[in-house]
Amino acid sequence: MKSLFSGMRPTGKLHIGHYFGALKNWKKLQDEYKCIFGAMDLHALTTSFEDTDKIGENIIDMIIDWLSVGLDPNKATFMIQSHVREHSELHLVLSMLTPLPWLQRNPVLKEQVKSLNLGDSFSYGLLGYPVLMAADILLYKSDIVPVGEDQVPHIEITREIARRFNFYYKEIFPLPKPKLTETPRIPGVDGKEKMSKSLGNHILISEPKESLEKKVMSMVTDPQKIRLKDPGHPEVCTVFYFHKMFNKEEVSQIEEDCKKGALGCVACKRNLAKKIYEYFAPIREKRAKYENDPDLVKNIIREGEKKAREIASSTMDEVREAMKMSY
Amino acid sequence: MKSLFSGMRPTGKLHIGHYFGALKNWKKLQDEYKCIFGAMDLHALTTSFEDTDKIGENIIDMIIDWLSVGLDPNKATFMIQSHVREHSELHLVLSMLTPLPWLQRNPVLKEQVKSLNLGDSFSYGLLGYPVLMAADILLYKSDIVPVGEDQVPHIEITREIARRFNFYYKEIFPLPKPKLTETPRIPGVDGKEKMSKSLGNHILISEPKESLEKKVMSMVTDPQKIRLKDPGHPEVCTVFYFHKMFNKEEVSQIEEDCKKGALGCVACKRNLAKKIYEYFAPIREKRAKYENDPDLVKNIIREGEKKAREIASSTMDEVREAMKMSY
Repeated sequence: MKSLFSGMRPTGKLHIGHYFGALKNWKKLQDEYKCIFGAMDLHALTTSFEDTDKIGENIIDMIIDWLSVGLDPNKATFMIQSHVREHSELHLVLSMLTPLPWLQRNPVLKEQVKSLNLGDSFSYGLLGYPVLMAADILLYKSDIVPVGEDQVPHIEITREIARRFNFYYKEIFPLPKPKLTETPRIPGVDGKEKMSKSLGNHILISEPKESLEKKVMSMVTDPQKIRLKDPGHPEVCTVFYFHKMFNKEEVSQIEEDCKKGALGCVACKRNLAKKIYEYFAPIREKRAKYENDPDLVKNIIREGEKKAREIASSTMDEVREAMKMSY
Repeated sequence: MKSLFSGMRPTGKLHIGHYFGALKNWKKLQDEYKCIFGAMDLHALTTSFEDTDKIGENIIDMIIDWLSVGLDPNKATFMIQSHVREHSELHLVLSMLTPLPWLQRNPVLKEQVKSLNLGDSFSYGLLGYPVLMAADILLYKSDIVPVGEDQVPHIEITREIARRFNFYYKEIFPLPKPKLTETPRIPGVDGKEKMSKSLGNHILISEPKESLEKKVMSMVTDPQKIRLKDPGHPEVCTVFYFHKMFNKEEVSQIEEDCKKGALGCVACKRNLAKKIYEYFAPIREKRAKYENDPDLVKNIIREGEKKAREIASSTMDEVREAMKMSY
């Protein structure tokens, strides 16, 4: 079985965008690959080292979501990045092998610096993000890394670094392949292109009923449909977009009724809120179980880390051996 | 007792320049401070990652020299940098706190890039050298770092990084002070400004008799003293410079005889070779003892590392605690 590594920054409870963008995919992958899923707390420091108060809580909340959606610790290995010290070790070694220009011309960094308005004054660690990512991936000799299109340059750098290590010392790292997965676009409740926690336009997988209703009721609909009987244009309506995902049975009826002015937005939204709430009911139930048993969650992480550490430390032994540094 | 950290890259057997430039000083410092002396193998990778074949051997040769000159494992702690994994861990954390411009304007780097002809294509790790050095120093909460004038900017960066950590998280790091020590200039046997292994103009502390004689006989003398009876100018003569260090009893007589043409260079060099050989005789004797007992040396290192690791891991616990990352 081939090895696969993937990770998420610990941003706390996950939202619908994470669910359709990553978790559903991970759930499938855990049957096809030897998966390691990481809570990447050190990555989180690259852009917000000064704000660490909630990392611990966020990690647990995130991993509870992983478990609740059906990621299975008997199939996949869960770990917290900073708990497997070998990530730091391999990172340092690889940083010696990585020519600076590879990082300076990294298009992902350029994009990030622009979008976060970092100017010239970001950290050394952010510049080295691809080196840390390479360490994460290579430590487990991963064959496959599921990524979005925008992360492909990072996998390219990982491959270059692996190639360089293999060339100078010894062929120990497989060259990992990016696995691109088609995922549906998940807009924000404000109608913006992308659902995102930092934009505050998200619905949590575990969103409580009341706030879920509030968020759905606030959704942007067809601006031309002002009164109930106005004919609507579902193709521009965020509510309709979500009906297509969460309410497959009724979606054609809704389209028809909306278009002919037979369905008002308020009723349509109420219906959507109910459907979303029902969709995640089994996940919420599982979540409650894990929330009430923090030791269970901690044990799962601890067990995962034990497995991860075994692989990681054996890789580091090989690395030192290859570099003639196992004295 | 205040803490002091110092390290050397593992370049193998040490030469006279190391002896007068660092080791004599370390020997004094081990009585005044809680000293940790490191064989900095990871630092060595910053400029020559592709050439690691001899690192292991070089470390042992270097540490045997430390022991032979009188560094005392009962007073100071000896360790190999890569054996105390916390160096890598703290390095990664500090790399997130270090603004890139601090490293880009580092004058030591600029000098190094020029002198090693690295152009634009040095490694990410070399750019981050001061971050790794900061980790080395702060890991042991060092108060004092003995350095040459040229390394002072690195200590400045260490202080800035420590200050930043203390400010954002919690006051755990003392701000280390550079300790500048006057050391005599040690020229190369070719008369060049500085004795250096890479220039091949060095005399080892443990130089065998025959090659010591050969090196001294090849030394540059006063170019105006061609025949034995020509009056010499000791002030421009490398041989005379070394007489001042190794032959204090005879030095004024030598000066007089040389100036009046009563002492030929060949005899003068023979005499110097003998004096240098005698000077290091007790050190050579101790060296032989350690060379014949590799287990003793390994045990000393192992014991040192155990002590170093204890301090380092307790510092990392504090670091994680301060960052709210001890979950």
